[in-house]
Amino acid sequence: MSKVFVNIGLSLDGYMAPEGMTLENWDRPEYKDWGAKWGALMSWILNQQYFRENLKLGPGGETGPVNDMLRNTTERIGANIMGKRMFEAGERSWPEDAPFHTPVYVLTHEKREPWVRPGGTTFYFVNDGPESALEQARESAGSRDIRIAGGADVIQQYLNLGVIDELEIALAPVVFGGGRRLFENLREPVQRFRVDKVHESRAATHLRYVRE
Amino acid sequence: MSKVFVNIGLSLDGYMAPEGMTLENWDRPEYKDWGAKWGALMSWILNQQYFRENLKLGPGGETGPVNDMLRNTTERIGANIMGKRMFEAGERSWPEDAPFHTPVYVLTHEKREPWVRPGGTTFYFVNDGPESALEQARESAGSRDIRIAGGADVIQQYLNLGVIDELEIALAPVVFGGGRRLFENLREPVQRFRVDKVHESRAATHLRYVRE
Repeated sequence: MSKVFVNIGLSLDGYMAPEGMTLENWDRPEYKDWGAKWGALMSWILNQQYFRENLKLGPGGETGPVNDMLRNTTERIGANIMGKRMFEAGERSWPEDAPFHTPVYVLTHEKREPWVRPGGTTFYFVNDGPESALEQARESAGSRDIRIAGGADVIQQYLNLGVIDELEIALAPVVFGGGRRLFENLREPVQRFRVDKVHESRAATHLRYVRE
Repeated sequence: MSKVFVNIGLSLDGYMAPEGMTLENWDRPEYKDWGAKWGALMSWILNQQYFRENLKLGPGGETGPVNDMLRNTTERIGANIMGKRMFEAGERSWPEDAPFHTPVYVLTHEKREPWVRPGGTTFYFVNDGPESALEQARESAGSRDIRIAGGADVIQQYLNLGVIDELEIALAPVVFGGGRRLFENLREPVQRFRVDKVHESRAATHLRYVRE
């Protein structure tokens, strides 16, 4: 059966996004310095060859263990699930062929027809909750895995459903001081994980946990 | 000059102590399951030979890189600084010769004469704030280093003063779901760190950051 996994960047103080990084400030990266903070959080990925290729940022970029990890992570995904806010931010910033190349289930109250993008990404807008989205994702993922892409609130919902098999965190050495926390609003008993693997690099410590 | 450092255990979700772990519940470790959570957070240290010896928990225990790390950390300390709550909890649970063997500066509003313990630990009760405590600690530490022992609020005060040179975190694979967060109440601009070293083990990922 498909594994359900999370693979995200996190600040040392536990934030997935800095304060001020909202749709309305999207064109003001200087607002509360969110652009610089986001850049520091993402610096481990921005110069990887695979990421650059996928986001059409141009040729070149690092190859090596982190790039391999990135490629393996992306290639194992059969379906993505994300929240409405992440979708709306991405809708403004992804290239025309959105960088998923799988079905993407967007948790939203908005009713909207599936949005087919060139390159294999189709966004489906799910109005009946995270369990339904997961069920649809399982159907379309086949033997590949399901990524809970974010944001924080969506990951929290799936942690509370107890369905996360693997938690992969790129812990960046940056302290935001505020923003959207990954770990909050969790219900007891919280799911248990064990350390599976750690990969050290200058730009982030890659922590991989699996369900105990 | 002495380095100022932090060396603490942290849950994966960023808590230094689980919810319910307060003085009034000290004898009820089943309250909100705080005892089991604390045990899971500390499991990396509880069976280390050096820790057992220092806390008089009996002979035996693991030797190896984590034990060496623990010994090196302890032996570099010339003075400790802690908060009143940590002191009061420790006062009830440390052995008679408290496990510091250095001057310990306790941030508190309580006026109290220095409390000399056998084995080289003397507690000094500082009423005029964290900067004064640090100054006194520097004087007594000589060429050795100063550990900001905790709790979270005290570490936050020193992070906000911008004086932390090294941040060592034993990140345990346990999710508390609530408790006392290490990283909150931080003021901008937050101090910058870089990854210095990572040591992987089953019971905790040992992350060492140094001031950038």
